[in-house]
Amino acid sequence: MSLVNRRTVMIEWGDCDPAGIVWYPRYFGMFDAATAHLFGAAGFPKPAMLKRFEVVGYPMVDTRAKFLVPSKFGDEIIIESRIAEFRRSSFDVEHRVLKGETLAIEGFETRVLVRRDPDTGGIKGTSIPQEIIDAFQTA
Amino acid sequence: MSLVNRRTVMIEWGDCDPAGIVWYPRYFGMFDAATAHLFGAAGFPKPAMLKRFEVVGYPMVDTRAKFLVPSKFGDEIIIESRIAEFRRSSFDVEHRVLKGETLAIEGFETRVLVRRDPDTGGIKGTSIPQEIIDAFQTA
Amino acid sequence: MSLVNRRTVMIEWGDCDPAGIVWYPRYFGMFDAATAHLFGAAGFPKPAMLKRFEVVGYPMVDTRAKFLVPSKFGDEIIIESRIAEFRRSSFDVEHRVLKGETLAIEGFETRVLVRRDPDTGGIKGTSIPQEIIDAFQTA
Amino acid sequence: MSLVNRRTVMIEWGDCDPAGIVWYPRYFGMFDAATAHLFGAAGFPKPAMLKRFEVVGYPMVDTRAKFLVPSKFGDEIIIESRIAEFRRSSFDVEHRVLKGETLAIEGFETRVLVRRDPDTGGIKGTSIPQEIIDAFQTA
Repeated sequence: MSLVNRRTVMIEWGDCDPAGIVWYPRYFGMFDAATAHLFGAAGFPKPAMLKRFEVVGYPMVDTRAKFLVPSKFGDEIIIESRIAEFRRSSFDVEHRVLKGETLAIEGFETRVLVRRDPDTGGIKGTSIPQEIIDAFQTA
Repeated sequence: MSLVNRRTVMIEWGDCDPAGIVWYPRYFGMFDAATAHLFGAAGFPKPAMLKRFEVVGYPMVDTRAKFLVPSKFGDEIIIESRIAEFRRSSFDVEHRVLKGETLAIEGFETRVLVRRDPDTGGIKGTSIPQEIIDAFQTA
Repeated sequence: MSLVNRRTVMIEWGDCDPAGIVWYPRYFGMFDAATAHLFGAAGFPKPAMLKRFEVVGYPMVDTRAKFLVPSKFGDEIIIESRIAEFRRSSFDVEHRVLKGETLAIEGFETRVLVRRDPDTGGIKGTSIPQEIIDAFQTA
Repeated sequence: MSLVNRRTVMIEWGDCDPAGIVWYPRYFGMFDAATAHLFGAAGFPKPAMLKRFEVVGYPMVDTRAKFLVPSKFGDEIIIESRIAEFRRSSFDVEHRVLKGETLAIEGFETRVLVRRDPDTGGIKGTSIPQEIIDAFQTA
């Protein structure tokens, strides 16, 4: 699982709350995009991935974030993202947010790859294609 | 810590993603409001609480959520929130999201009460007023 | 077009920006929900309406808002919404935001009812069912 | 007013609604950031500008957007922003969103520069510094 994707994100005015720091739900939005860009870096941009493997997405099952250092508008942060583990239909992602050299946030995600369930109209877990797993290992 | 606050939240179109279910960062926004309303139910609406105790807010230190059942627009969910523990300047909140009788999400938060630090212009932890702690215990 | 729907909305901490007032894009989110609730009040909650008439939604074509009085977290606003005009596939909505007796925001929307275009996979305008128009006129 | 700022924005999964296209309030968030970056391009990044001129921000007074072509996640859009006019304390901004060569959205804003009103604790309009106006004209 060697692939690590790095993105620089500028904190905007609208990301921040009346205390002048990032309103924490915004970080989860940034992490969601970071996970999509991590797959993109492995060769699977989200729109193409959904179409090709006939999946609906990879909704969140369990997520945690530890906030160590706040950021404010105008700050630049770097989000480093990597897959920690692939299982049959679920996988773990880790995000590290850096401000300069300082670790500002640690994020953890467990997601599950889902397809449309034709019986219920809902969604259900589906096997992660080996091709995707291989792409991360050889990246 | 007997006070439990319940809020009914209608899931809106704009809360949902192309899979048709709630985009999970939205739940953290709902939890942030639910925590504010929990303090409000104890007699400390957020604007009055900030003014009275000269604090800036209670930013998130550590949060986790487990998503068991998805929701889609038009669904109604109930968010049950309670303080799990008060410490000197930090406290834990638990949220349970119910769809009818079904537990849909469990949320956990550790927050810290902060005031403006006149030396740095930043924020720093401050003791939780006993009056607030008492209000939750007698509610 | 006599039906007017009124909703009370509590301004939350996360709706506000570092100036302490509502970050204006949030109002458009509130208006989007208000339009859905206006249709709901006429007997067409959005999920049921989409299913029954096999439409995808009513995306925005043109919108304008004039902001007269700012709001901050803890404030309660009332959003009054009504249909100003129905045309073949498009319609106009007006929102008035009140703080007590004071007009705080005026919002205007032109939306178009769309269905999936089987030829392109995109969306295209479709006639507004007379039944919907009638429901607003007799409400 | 010759300065035009261009930004490329990637449409993310979380920007989109159940119809699979951008939920329009998101565009206003993008425009708000685009206006801040326009000032940044003129030499006035928002945090420095607020500090230097002792202003609180430039809240929205009146905004309009016409949506011509929808976008979906994975699309890249270009936002071209420019000041249309400076007045004493208010100014007009225009945004053009392009998808390739195609004009997808036109956005219009009237904003007002505000400072803290020491008498009321609220905000009030203040003259736009000539130095800012000059920077746009010579850029």
